Amino acid sequence: MLISELARSSGVPLPTVKYYLREGLLPPGVATSATRATYDESHLRRLRLIRALVDVGSLRLDAVRMILEAVDDKGVDLHDTIGAAHTALSPGGEASQRGRQAVEGLVRRHRWRVEEGSRNKVALAVALDAFDRLGQQPADETLDVYADAAAMVAKVDVASVPTETAEDAVEFAVVGTVLFEPVLLALRRLAQEDASGRRLARRRVRTARRTRG
Amino acid sequence: MLISELARSSGVPLPTVKYYLREGLLPPGVATSATRATYDESHLRRLRLIRALVDVGSLRLDAVRMILEAVDDKGVDLHDTIGAAHTALSPGGEASQRGRQAVEGLVRRHRWRVEEGSRNKVALAVALDAFDRLGQQPADETLDVYADAAAMVAKVDVASVPTETAEDAVEFAVVGTVLFEPVLLALRRLAQEDASGRRLARRRVRTARRTRG
Repeated sequence: MLISELARSSGVPLPTVKYYLREGLLPPGVATSATRATYDESHLRRLRLIRALVDVGSLRLDAVRMILEAVDDKGVDLHDTIGAAHTALSPGGEASQRGRQAVEGLVRRHRWRVEEGSRNKVALAVALDAFDRLGQQPADETLDVYADAAAMVAKVDVASVPTETAEDAVEFAVVGTVLFEPVLLALRRLAQEDASGRRLARRRVRTARRTRG
Repeated sequence: MLISELARSSGVPLPTVKYYLREGLLPPGVATSATRATYDESHLRRLRLIRALVDVGSLRLDAVRMILEAVDDKGVDLHDTIGAAHTALSPGGEASQRGRQAVEGLVRRHRWRVEEGSRNKVALAVALDAFDRLGQQPADETLDVYADAAAMVAKVDVASVPTETAEDAVEFAVVGTVLFEPVLLALRRLAQEDASGRRLARRRVRTARRTRG
């Protein structure tokens, strides 16, 4: 197909497609004349991946480039390619030693096999540090319930990643990771609403009686 | 204590304390002269709650005011007070009918007791709508695993809320809800890293052999 058709089929504006070509994010088409080239399904798939990373993952182009390099490098295995994508999504940051130790303890208790310098570990330590600033620290028992819940959903997430092509796998992993985040948070609040109603039901009845009486 | 001590003890800048007093978010102290008033522990606690809502919950002052009114209204029971605070945290939005139906189905399957017009339901429907735009929809089975995981952590969240005073309960509920969100998301990514490593381990060995061979 021509570049104009590629733009139309992908829903990506033509100037943006041309920009991705110039930047080398999208491989060149096959030249059919000095000024024309044709593109195929692989270009469509690549465009879809780029848009998922940019629109859903809110990634900057340098992070997108890093992921695409991992996708294209046949020496990089699928787990590491997906890992590169997840790493690009993770907010880094500076964690306290206490936060990092809490994370190491948790990883050990749950026997999770994760990279030594995993950015997900740093993100978790930074998130735990926020409690410190309020003079609170979640108990290990609480964190363990959270970790078990996280493992439950992660298992489902990972089981459904297609492994045929690195492009599909990365797109699915990134889109799934990002799109399910607000779902998980909204579900937690909805479940809190239910749990709070059950826990405070008796108190509610008492208060209602007192108010009416 | 004097207003200057109140500012110092709470860590809230004096001009901000005065602003909260003018806006009626902080109740007036007991006047000891025409220009002086004294403040007590209840003012400190209220200031801490306001800061938690503003700093941790990123709430605007009109939302803070709404929550404080629920805290102060003895006719409102604790569950509804916490609910008012959670509602103020929830992003709201416009959900599609399909998204809303998916949420109703899920609430029914899990027998969650939630308010008819709960904003958490809307937030969930909006989150599900994001999949639609990519032409995907999570399967009910996937959502159910997510819901079960959410219920696990919600139970722990709610069980630890102190119920002595409405102020403590609301502060704890808001702070816990907000601060645990990045913890849960980071744990999920870390667990994905572990799950992905386990699932793709054999593939990794094969690839490594091919690469070295």
